[in-house]
Amino acid sequence: MSQNVAVIGLGSMGYGMALSALREGNRVWGQDISPKRKAEFVVEGGETTPLPDSLDVVMVVVLNSAQTEEVLFGEDGIAAKLRKGAVVLGCATVAPEFAKDMEARCNAMGILYLDAPISGGAGKAALGQLSVMASGSQDAFDAARPILASVSETVFELGDHAGPGSAMKAVNQLLAGVHIAAMAEALTFGMTQGVQPNQFVDVISKCAGSSWMLENRAPHIVDGDYSPRSQVAIWPKDLGIVLDIAKTTGFDAPITQSALAQFKAAADMGLSGEDDAAVAKTYARQAGLTLPGE
Amino acid sequence: MSQNVAVIGLGSMGYGMALSALREGNRVWGQDISPKRKAEFVVEGGETTPLPDSLDVVMVVVLNSAQTEEVLFGEDGIAAKLRKGAVVLGCATVAPEFAKDMEARCNAMGILYLDAPISGGAGKAALGQLSVMASGSQDAFDAARPILASVSETVFELGDHAGPGSAMKAVNQLLAGVHIAAMAEALTFGMTQGVQPNQFVDVISKCAGSSWMLENRAPHIVDGDYSPRSQVAIWPKDLGIVLDIAKTTGFDAPITQSALAQFKAAADMGLSGEDDAAVAKTYARQAGLTLPGE
Repeated sequence: MSQNVAVIGLGSMGYGMALSALREGNRVWGQDISPKRKAEFVVEGGETTPLPDSLDVVMVVVLNSAQTEEVLFGEDGIAAKLRKGAVVLGCATVAPEFAKDMEARCNAMGILYLDAPISGGAGKAALGQLSVMASGSQDAFDAARPILASVSETVFELGDHAGPGSAMKAVNQLLAGVHIAAMAEALTFGMTQGVQPNQFVDVISKCAGSSWMLENRAPHIVDGDYSPRSQVAIWPKDLGIVLDIAKTTGFDAPITQSALAQFKAAADMGLSGEDDAAVAKTYARQAGLTLPGE
Repeated sequence: MSQNVAVIGLGSMGYGMALSALREGNRVWGQDISPKRKAEFVVEGGETTPLPDSLDVVMVVVLNSAQTEEVLFGEDGIAAKLRKGAVVLGCATVAPEFAKDMEARCNAMGILYLDAPISGGAGKAALGQLSVMASGSQDAFDAARPILASVSETVFELGDHAGPGSAMKAVNQLLAGVHIAAMAEALTFGMTQGVQPNQFVDVISKCAGSSWMLENRAPHIVDGDYSPRSQVAIWPKDLGIVLDIAKTTGFDAPITQSALAQFKAAADMGLSGEDDAAVAKTYARQAGLTLPGE
């Protein structure tokens, strides 16, 4: 079923989702602050002219809640232009309360809202194989199902209202961020004891100390390749969101705080635009170690 | 090839290794401070009478370096009674420098030493499917090969002298301990946002936030089952060893310190003898949450 789809934010995730939506035969409009990204998207068969009145689906794939709110309800916001029954997918990592607020404000305008944060990285986005941690009304799920089928491999259906999707995403980001920083801590600690990074990957990825992030990111350090698949900059933002949510209930998250401090240190070293495995450089500098490729 | 094997320490790991050695047709002597454990081992076909002069292999499966040294070189130490060419496998988690010292002292007495810390838990020990992070001389490996084949599925050969095996084990323990505590932090954080523990396991184990320890330990929390497969008490010990090693080179390991604090808090709550997943109880108490089964 061909639909009229808008993708707001053609970053590495949004661009891949837009391509996946195109590939399935939808008409897809892409919006981004970068003219270059939009021009590339047109070459791929996408559209960027003013959004039509006839949109069925809007996927908001921006950085955070402030951008999500601006896109939907700011000056020139999209929500006011959508037809009744259109569905908005909120894909940014945001607080559950914010997702609930977006749902309420959309519903008040006759628009459906699916709390739909995404996981899997740029590669999976381009292949239409993301995981979506989704929650929302039955109507929102029904309206979103075709586009979810285009962009994702797995849809976790986590509840009948906005909030639980974003809560699960925050839980996942807590662990993902901690595991990247812990991997960096362990890899560099090993180096102080003569364990080479390639040996670290070979052995630990087969042992009880392994994690999804270790298997995915530690090879970047072995290769000395910090071209960003996922940037350091993601983690001060996402772990900050986790801690903001935790603060609302007085929950202490000391390990998250400790990992956040490492990513902030990496950002302070000017590494925000590098692959997030570059958090290892903060440890290497402290310990006087030379990482592969340096 | 049947050998004469001694297993010093019939805890959950040592007992399983002793059974695996028996199953492969070796004569196996077990020693433990618990008469009950020794009696059980005799029922299984093991021996506990004074150790014979004709031992080929001694596996030292005790708690730490102090116990390892006492067993080998203390009053009534085993090293003095071994024939030339017998091999000692040091299986406790110890500092690399300590392992080197044990190797030197054994070699000076004409005994071989394999730095051979183990990973995999009691279940794998009983099945003869442990992972061994081994380093030592060619002669030590050659002498240990038959018993390694009996007790392990994977032997990582990490160097031609003692030290690298223990270094890799410390790296693994750093990550394993951090991942257990981070899992507990994330699971309980999720509960404050309405994510149920079973939902947490179902979703996160399939996402980028997963880890070996999450998949293995989080179900214990879902089941409310804290019967010890691996005890809380392991982690103040093993993360303490990691930090002691780190201190020798001035390496900062802030995430490890943060995880250690959680296990110490669990020990202070009287949970040392429970399964290490019980570290979640420290978070639950702080946040006023009720875990499954409580």
